[in-house]
Amino acid sequence: MGKQFLEITRKTEVDAIIAQIAAEVARVRVGAGTGAGAGGSAEKVGISDILGRIASSDIFSAIDVPTFDRAIMDGYAVVASDTFYTDETNPISLIIKGYLSAGESPATSQSVEKRYCIGISTGAPIPTGANAVVKVEDTSEYTGDSDHGAIKKVKVYRPVAPGENIMPAASDIKRGEQIVRSGTTFTPRETGILAACGINEVYVRKKPTVAIISTGNELIAPGEVLAPAKIYDVNAQTLCDSVRESGCIPHFAGIARDNIEEISLKLTESLEKGADVIIATGGTSAGVDDLLLRAIEECAGAESKILVHGVDIKPGKPFIFGLLAEKPFFGLPGNPTPALITFSLFVAPLLRTISGTGTGTERRGYNEKRIEAKAAQRIFSERGRNEYVLVNIVPVPVPVKNSVKKQEEASFLAYPILTGSGAITTLSKAEGYIFMEKGKEIIEEGDEVEVELLM
Amino acid sequence: MGKQFLEITRKTEVDAIIAQIAAEVARVRVGAGTGAGAGGSAEKVGISDILGRIASSDIFSAIDVPTFDRAIMDGYAVVASDTFYTDETNPISLIIKGYLSAGESPATSQSVEKRYCIGISTGAPIPTGANAVVKVEDTSEYTGDSDHGAIKKVKVYRPVAPGENIMPAASDIKRGEQIVRSGTTFTPRETGILAACGINEVYVRKKPTVAIISTGNELIAPGEVLAPAKIYDVNAQTLCDSVRESGCIPHFAGIARDNIEEISLKLTESLEKGADVIIATGGTSAGVDDLLLRAIEECAGAESKILVHGVDIKPGKPFIFGLLAEKPFFGLPGNPTPALITFSLFVAPLLRTISGTGTGTERRGYNEKRIEAKAAQRIFSERGRNEYVLVNIVPVPVPVKNSVKKQEEASFLAYPILTGSGAITTLSKAEGYIFMEKGKEIIEEGDEVEVELLM
Repeated sequence: MGKQFLEITRKTEVDAIIAQIAAEVARVRVGAGTGAGAGGSAEKVGISDILGRIASSDIFSAIDVPTFDRAIMDGYAVVASDTFYTDETNPISLIIKGYLSAGESPATSQSVEKRYCIGISTGAPIPTGANAVVKVEDTSEYTGDSDHGAIKKVKVYRPVAPGENIMPAASDIKRGEQIVRSGTTFTPRETGILAACGINEVYVRKKPTVAIISTGNELIAPGEVLAPAKIYDVNAQTLCDSVRESGCIPHFAGIARDNIEEISLKLTESLEKGADVIIATGGTSAGVDDLLLRAIEECAGAESKILVHGVDIKPGKPFIFGLLAEKPFFGLPGNPTPALITFSLFVAPLLRTISGTGTGTERRGYNEKRIEAKAAQRIFSERGRNEYVLVNIVPVPVPVKNSVKKQEEASFLAYPILTGSGAITTLSKAEGYIFMEKGKEIIEEGDEVEVELLM
Repeated sequence: MGKQFLEITRKTEVDAIIAQIAAEVARVRVGAGTGAGAGGSAEKVGISDILGRIASSDIFSAIDVPTFDRAIMDGYAVVASDTFYTDETNPISLIIKGYLSAGESPATSQSVEKRYCIGISTGAPIPTGANAVVKVEDTSEYTGDSDHGAIKKVKVYRPVAPGENIMPAASDIKRGEQIVRSGTTFTPRETGILAACGINEVYVRKKPTVAIISTGNELIAPGEVLAPAKIYDVNAQTLCDSVRESGCIPHFAGIARDNIEEISLKLTESLEKGADVIIATGGTSAGVDDLLLRAIEECAGAESKILVHGVDIKPGKPFIFGLLAEKPFFGLPGNPTPALITFSLFVAPLLRTISGTGTGTERRGYNEKRIEAKAAQRIFSERGRNEYVLVNIVPVPVPVKNSVKKQEEASFLAYPILTGSGAITTLSKAEGYIFMEKGKEIIEEGDEVEVELLM
């Protein structure tokens, strides 16, 4: 009895199918976005707006940084050999020809020859002839006599080697040097390097757009008046926000009633508006006559390809993945909690791949989206299902052995959330989920579990 | 010789001073923002734009969720007692009075009495009289005879208890229930709960604004033509972006030349524009005659209060913290790397406190901004200084013992970055820093170190 799913695909297989499509879409996008000329997948943005965006091409410096030899201490620009063999009791006296502050260009008269020096501030250019800077702490200024009356002099009490306290031109960045690699996510450190090279605009990858369609006769939008038998649409909100967190731009296409024409129309509109990915929620269960599948057939026909219909996990079994006119298409369950879990398991990885998003830490391998915890109580799973059990997490501070300095480290207890998948509040209580593989039906209280955090 | 700092404060003391001011400022802001009426620190925002923002008051539901008893399975709404004692060989036949889909209100004629039932879809309201739903899998529909001709009937093969497969009205959220606590950062899960309650606008905390002033005769803005002896201003960019990452809005006030009037003018303008925090870079070193301090005196005079001038760390010693007309004020070193390190150590904690930012994970105690690594080589520190050594991190995959399922876990090697604090590229190489406390002058190769990640 009851309608059956076309076929159930194993989760690992679903992961592989989606990863392959994601890689292909990402490859095409990145290819289109390469080069400063910017294909369809890149856009030019001022550096004030690139935090968290992704470089669409390699970026090179057009200048040396610094462009001149630069003092890195306050002091005196000298000919180093003048200072050799000096010490506290045998200082050398140099005549001060003038002073140079940061930002000032040395006048032609300010070249330094032996027995002379220029007082110099940190950041000022080294005048011609000088090849070292003596720190102000190692000197004392005084007014001396000369044939032409009183003149400013300085005693130097310590020797400096040639090059000392000077940052040579181009020592930091060389003209033509690659400063940002294509695919880099901009943090304040990268934007700082761009600023240092005088760059105020760069090409970044366009964010992929994701169309979101809610389906269901019972749904109305938040803010509207609640009619009998209706409920507010939750998925539009949670999925739009989850899409944002995955580095993409959501476009909510609206609520479609449970009929093929309306759903098909929304799908067509989304494709026409250039959506890179389409997500529909509801209408995926065999119970509603596979409305979504029939709408896809209606809308895209020969251009559509259903790759997954049904996956061996709970919650989230009635999951659809395919291509709609070459665009990745997801059909998620209508209930908010399974919708968000299948988003997290299947949609987010694809979106992160094609948007190139992912924190720097993920790429480096010290991603900590997963934590170790202990089960706070017995947890049961349905027989013969790969089950994702939502949990909340309570930290239990324990003192760290052999350490007085370290802060207390935390260990965690995971409490299963037992409200059903229809409940909205399940979402707000859940901080992560535990995976119970088919065949694993009980986790005992106190067992070590790995919790995948919902971010 | 050489000018001295007024007094050097210990880092722990600086932390305490800043934490106290931060708590005070946060208290005043949150106080002002409490209540839906919204004081000066709250603003009303549509729920599409609240991801990552912070609730400025508790939020309550105005409705029950669901508002009606709701079927959670496809099947038949029945009087439970009709089904008692049924099994595969002894089904009960019920007359189908009609069908109800999700979103449809039951007609008055659709009440259910004994021996009758209503075909019902997941999400539809339970009709009057029914008190349970039999799953479609446990039934078979057929056409039977009656006095009035052929009628639709269904055989029920399994008993249901009263309430089975029904989600009662208000069981998820009760009218008047608190659904979001003041101070909560909105994730897709919270925005989903708001949607479920039909809420499409909420009050969120205004983001604090942070004025940023660069000082230095040598500085010009990226995008302008580089004149001799000039360098591009890096701090404006890195600090604006770091301010954004700390949940605040940066306002770059521009570059001030090294004179008291110009700096003072920028400070005054920033206060007039209502900046909640002011950051100036450069001009903090005793070497430039404490320009910044004198500008503060000029601008705010009796209304200013310098709480810290100089801290016992390297890099970052010439650090200033105080209050300018009651607004927190930071003076950071002019060199980009020390500027960013002092920002990370002292400014970010204040901004995160007053903006209320911080990831959910931080609040729960499983923040992993710190990782354990091994020193990849010997690391030296200057004698008698608390030193922050910038490092980059290379993951070293090691197989996990006793586990075939788990992915390989990573361990990390930390390499010190040896370019000076004047170098810009130091920034892009650095992924974090190691703290070497005064008295600790050598870390041996292979020693365990704790790396604070630069995010």
